[in-house]
Amino acid sequence: MSITDVAAPSFVEKLSAAKAASTVLATLTADRKNAALRAVAGALLAAESRIVEANERDLAAAREAGLSASLRDRLRLDGDRLASLAAATELVATLVDPVGETVRGRVLPNGLRLDQIRVPFGVVGAIYEARPNVTVDIAALALKSGNAAVLRGGSAALHTNAVLVEVLQEALVASGLPAHAVVTIDEFGREGATSLMTAREHVDVLVPRGSAELIRTVVRESSVPVIETGAGVVHVFLDESAELEMSVDIVLDAKTTRPSVCNALETLLVHEAAAPRLLPPVIAALQAAGVTVHGDERTRSLADGVVAATEADWAAEYMSLDLAVAVVPDLDAATAHIARWSTHHTESIVTNDHAAAERFLAEVDSAVVMVNASTRFTDGGEFGFGAEVGISTQKLHARGPMGLGELTSSKWVVRGSGQVRG
Amino acid sequence: MSITDVAAPSFVEKLSAAKAASTVLATLTADRKNAALRAVAGALLAAESRIVEANERDLAAAREAGLSASLRDRLRLDGDRLASLAAATELVATLVDPVGETVRGRVLPNGLRLDQIRVPFGVVGAIYEARPNVTVDIAALALKSGNAAVLRGGSAALHTNAVLVEVLQEALVASGLPAHAVVTIDEFGREGATSLMTAREHVDVLVPRGSAELIRTVVRESSVPVIETGAGVVHVFLDESAELEMSVDIVLDAKTTRPSVCNALETLLVHEAAAPRLLPPVIAALQAAGVTVHGDERTRSLADGVVAATEADWAAEYMSLDLAVAVVPDLDAATAHIARWSTHHTESIVTNDHAAAERFLAEVDSAVVMVNASTRFTDGGEFGFGAEVGISTQKLHARGPMGLGELTSSKWVVRGSGQVRG
Repeated sequence: MSITDVAAPSFVEKLSAAKAASTVLATLTADRKNAALRAVAGALLAAESRIVEANERDLAAAREAGLSASLRDRLRLDGDRLASLAAATELVATLVDPVGETVRGRVLPNGLRLDQIRVPFGVVGAIYEARPNVTVDIAALALKSGNAAVLRGGSAALHTNAVLVEVLQEALVASGLPAHAVVTIDEFGREGATSLMTAREHVDVLVPRGSAELIRTVVRESSVPVIETGAGVVHVFLDESAELEMSVDIVLDAKTTRPSVCNALETLLVHEAAAPRLLPPVIAALQAAGVTVHGDERTRSLADGVVAATEADWAAEYMSLDLAVAVVPDLDAATAHIARWSTHHTESIVTNDHAAAERFLAEVDSAVVMVNASTRFTDGGEFGFGAEVGISTQKLHARGPMGLGELTSSKWVVRGSGQVRG
Repeated sequence: MSITDVAAPSFVEKLSAAKAASTVLATLTADRKNAALRAVAGALLAAESRIVEANERDLAAAREAGLSASLRDRLRLDGDRLASLAAATELVATLVDPVGETVRGRVLPNGLRLDQIRVPFGVVGAIYEARPNVTVDIAALALKSGNAAVLRGGSAALHTNAVLVEVLQEALVASGLPAHAVVTIDEFGREGATSLMTAREHVDVLVPRGSAELIRTVVRESSVPVIETGAGVVHVFLDESAELEMSVDIVLDAKTTRPSVCNALETLLVHEAAAPRLLPPVIAALQAAGVTVHGDERTRSLADGVVAATEADWAAEYMSLDLAVAVVPDLDAATAHIARWSTHHTESIVTNDHAAAERFLAEVDSAVVMVNASTRFTDGGEFGFGAEVGISTQKLHARGPMGLGELTSSKWVVRGSGQVRG
């Protein structure tokens, strides 16, 4: 739909249509939703040329506007990536439907039967950057969990997202579902995004996805409840009793297997009694893997080729092959460092000391706390959720990796036979 | 502490102290917290004269300022009410501690042991009106759930709250707990309330308690996540098959046993096929109980003494012995009326038709949906929670009556033996 189309629905009309669609989605069986998801997967593959063509328009505009190669890479949606998206959508169809699950239930002394069951939120709003895969990803997860989705993607992906939403809507309608189960508000620009953040009448929850700056803005501006997925300044602490081989394995895995993701290691803390034993081989292994180590004075006294760390390094989410390293006097100093600098995403201790492990797990206030494991395990797939909505770093509603269940609310169902309180 | 005390801590100092106290509270055993709660209960009774004296100063100021009798009644804290508060605090000590409860847990295929456990939020902020009982109530619930509490009460209760917090802090310190586990920011006035709503560094969740206007303001202004406890425009629908005696019992119980609370009935809907049979006796019973019935045209044609309802009646949360009544063609019209006018708190259907009951339970999107039961059962105590934090009408985090568990977040604990993702 063209932005200049005089008959185009208004912002409020679109949101109202999504709200109306959400009441239909809320009571669909999993079979109906899964059939629609498979139809979406098929439609994405069938519309490859339309989608890729729209994406090439966005890419050309991005080049003209001077977007960096990495931003253009995020924006790109070619045949292979589209096939992956279709496969991911098929996968969502195989997951267990969270809607209707009984969270808890009992019979009250007066005979009332009480059940708390999972229900969809209703309308999920998403605000994200110019990554068109998010459009399909969020739409599929919302649909499976019985929610309508209102999407606001980055303006650089305008044409791609418009075609993707068209294709999604065609597949929904072909499956007998309301078209407005998925809508885009991209045509309303920044004003649309701002309006979405205060559209409490129409939107039940907002999920921002993207940079720390984007998320901060949405948190600050929204009166609609937000599920915050945040940055990961992730720590590993090598305790006095840490085994050398395990330390090397975990630090290497956490730092180097995918440095650009939020569960990658950013700061390594080492107990001073173990530093001379552990740090030289750990740093040698890191450097052999291409990691630039930014160390405090004591770290630099124990290994060569270490850049001097400044305070900015303790706060850095490098998302690259860089690592901050500090030697600390004890466990208390390690947890104090973490309390000061962590984004409360994931922290891990490597230790063979039971009491130290339990203290670390109890005292570190992060979404995921680990002993003797790589921080890279903080992931919906690894946790067995099948799909991941994101990793929440807030404490309300969801914390840590979110699966489909975290895209639901609940409802209390009370079945009586005429009970009154009197 | 006097507002003019030059050595008084600043707003940020107070919030930082509460945050520091929260880290101590987070790992306390239930025994320690229960002992502190019992000490608080004892201290409240021991400080009766101090508390009542402060309250009398507030009451005198309220009379002078021309506050209504009902507002002054809310503000009053006499010996009897103080004894009830102490008893309620003792009761909180008897409840099961939610902290440390395993929500779910499993061993992953790679041998990682994964447990999601309940942990305190950290710092709970409360913004409420001039009801000093809320000060003690929130402080006790926060303490039991391992949270520090930052309190902002109505300015009319300034002196009472100041003394209550002093007494609470004395009891905490006597129990070996940090004084700043409970702090008031009343001395910072409106500016303090505004700052609290954006204090994301120090406050993990905000719970507004009071009028719809207060709650709307907090939701609009806060960047701190809010748990919204909302108004109750509560409906009962008498279906075609509703039994007369059950209809009368449930409607009377829901409307008349405590009309000023949020789970009280505000609008009665009646199936047109049952209206001639049910409405005359139901309305007669209501009128005999002193209820003013505001009815639509068809209701007025079936009973005498019914005031003509206007559209405002469908939106009204009367909180008084008034009731709106409408005759509707069928179940669909009933659920459509509810979708339009309800605040999504509690709705109940009276029916003997299984399919109608199940449709109502599935299609009505409210925190609590009922069949053949009084809406007055929407209550933490009735649900078996022991204490009630409030009734959430939002969909994020908590929905419906909230117990101590709803004052907690969760944390994922991962125990490994050197696992890496590779």
